[in-house]
Amino acid sequence: MKVSLGTRLDELAEEQLVAILRQAYPTGAHPTEVADDDAAVATIARGSRLVTSTDLLVEHEDFVLPEFTPYDVGWKTAAVNLSDIAAMGARPTGLLMTLGIPRDRTVADLVGWGRGVRDAVATLAPGVSVWGGDLSASRLVISAATSTGEVEIPVTRAGAEPGDVVAYAGRLGFAAAGLRILLGERAGDPDLRGLERTGTIREAIDAQLRPRPPIALGAAAAVAGVHALIDVSDGLARDGARLARSSGVTLDLVSGALAGRCADLGWARHTLNIDPWELVMAGGEDYGLLAVFAPDARPPEGFEVLGAVVERGEHGVLLSGRPTEYLGFDHFAGR
Amino acid sequence: MKVSLGTRLDELAEEQLVAILRQAYPTGAHPTEVADDDAAVATIARGSRLVTSTDLLVEHEDFVLPEFTPYDVGWKTAAVNLSDIAAMGARPTGLLMTLGIPRDRTVADLVGWGRGVRDAVATLAPGVSVWGGDLSASRLVISAATSTGEVEIPVTRAGAEPGDVVAYAGRLGFAAAGLRILLGERAGDPDLRGLERTGTIREAIDAQLRPRPPIALGAAAAVAGVHALIDVSDGLARDGARLARSSGVTLDLVSGALAGRCADLGWARHTLNIDPWELVMAGGEDYGLLAVFAPDARPPEGFEVLGAVVERGEHGVLLSGRPTEYLGFDHFAGR
Repeated sequence: MKVSLGTRLDELAEEQLVAILRQAYPTGAHPTEVADDDAAVATIARGSRLVTSTDLLVEHEDFVLPEFTPYDVGWKTAAVNLSDIAAMGARPTGLLMTLGIPRDRTVADLVGWGRGVRDAVATLAPGVSVWGGDLSASRLVISAATSTGEVEIPVTRAGAEPGDVVAYAGRLGFAAAGLRILLGERAGDPDLRGLERTGTIREAIDAQLRPRPPIALGAAAAVAGVHALIDVSDGLARDGARLARSSGVTLDLVSGALAGRCADLGWARHTLNIDPWELVMAGGEDYGLLAVFAPDARPPEGFEVLGAVVERGEHGVLLSGRPTEYLGFDHFAGR
Repeated sequence: MKVSLGTRLDELAEEQLVAILRQAYPTGAHPTEVADDDAAVATIARGSRLVTSTDLLVEHEDFVLPEFTPYDVGWKTAAVNLSDIAAMGARPTGLLMTLGIPRDRTVADLVGWGRGVRDAVATLAPGVSVWGGDLSASRLVISAATSTGEVEIPVTRAGAEPGDVVAYAGRLGFAAAGLRILLGERAGDPDLRGLERTGTIREAIDAQLRPRPPIALGAAAAVAGVHALIDVSDGLARDGARLARSSGVTLDLVSGALAGRCADLGWARHTLNIDPWELVMAGGEDYGLLAVFAPDARPPEGFEVLGAVVERGEHGVLLSGRPTEYLGFDHFAGR
């Protein structure tokens, strides 16, 4: 479509909006050395490479209360932000944490949020320093993070080559299933009445509330010579296609390698009336790492091979050689 | 008062709330080397010192629409954030800019905000790189920034010594006067009907919408051997008292040195029914730099001497030797 100054923002994809903003920005004296990637990378004092990323989570858009406790919001904000640093093959070093919160909330909410941040760091990225942040009164709960990291040679989305191996570390589809349960319960969905939160159902809810990105595997993959990396925030199909587009290739995933993951979410078919394949291929917010290795490389423990890189074709991602209709999530358009 | 988990947040001062959060946070492997200051400072790769700061501006709390255009919001967010880096005596290097915006706003709003960021950087801190940021749909307009900077030896709030000279670079009271005009007009205040936006009235409104912190003077003051620095965001009295408390001294400001600044805002007495001294001493958001130099130092051009450092007494800030009742602004309690 033709974009004009009067175009409503929800008529455009998030990536178009970001491109519009980028045009306005000055490159300055320390320009980012990567484009359209998970985090920025710039060479600063003494030739060190600084990796930076920032994330904003807003009530009603990225989480709902009280299904998310303040603890969950703090945990998730830190976790998703650190995930971007890992996706550059970098080691996270520091975090700045920002909270906007209504004046009539209590000290318990503040403490809960801070403990969520603390526990996410201790669990996912021990050694990272929380340097401070900002605190503001706000009508909505707003939770934001900026993280920094260090890296010798950043791993972008752009290095995949035909013949390479596609691997993944983390869950797939769990966080999206968890979100559907939480929103369904909130809406009083009769199919969810009396749902027991056990086994993989509980795991799905936990994955939505307190994601566990494999932060250390980012730097470990870099040491193992990974060719390309991305964290899967918007679904395997969409983020896989982003990596494929950046690299100028197509990813061919083997359906057999994903079948077990779909079986784990088999209950979603009757409980949530959704195809587990949709969850595994398009469900966002699992924040696993999608990595592409040379065929003779040895992926670090925690990565599972899902397929191979082939020459660029019409599609970014194939499933056993065939196009997939799974699209994943666009934050802005909300679809 | 006694603080419990059930205490409402607006019963506490912002600094108490921040102290509660700090207790929860891990110091990690790269701890910040300054406490309770304008920005964090940590030693990272190759021994370089990284300065970081983040600011959140939220609709209804930090700005109102349409009195603030998207351009103004972008400008102000970048400007106030860069000001924190300057207040450590550091040179800013990079910015991450975050916008939360309702889906039904248009591309013009997005572009306006981005241009405000661009022009603030070009005007106040040319050479700073905008590395990216985050963009999210939100029911409220949210604008946030994180900036990084570099410094050899950070300038804290804690170095002032009795006998030193107190100097200031920037406006005082203008931004607070501008806010009162904007809010008064919005409320239909009859005293403001037909107010001509000329001279210092226009300057006051501009100071509120698009503050101009003297970013380069932070690093210049460091080169000149400044002993202590703070940026004045919450008013001269309050931020002066912060610097005084950190240094264990009292600042004695000379009323004659501030009289001219009060005269510039003389119109506020009848137009806004407010004492210009209240604006100059307690008006926030001017984002000038309050600096303390050794008596034989030569403050860089742009600084004006306002008084002297004396032994710590009962008060943080005196006005010609006498206590002042001006308090300045607490963001959280909103008073």
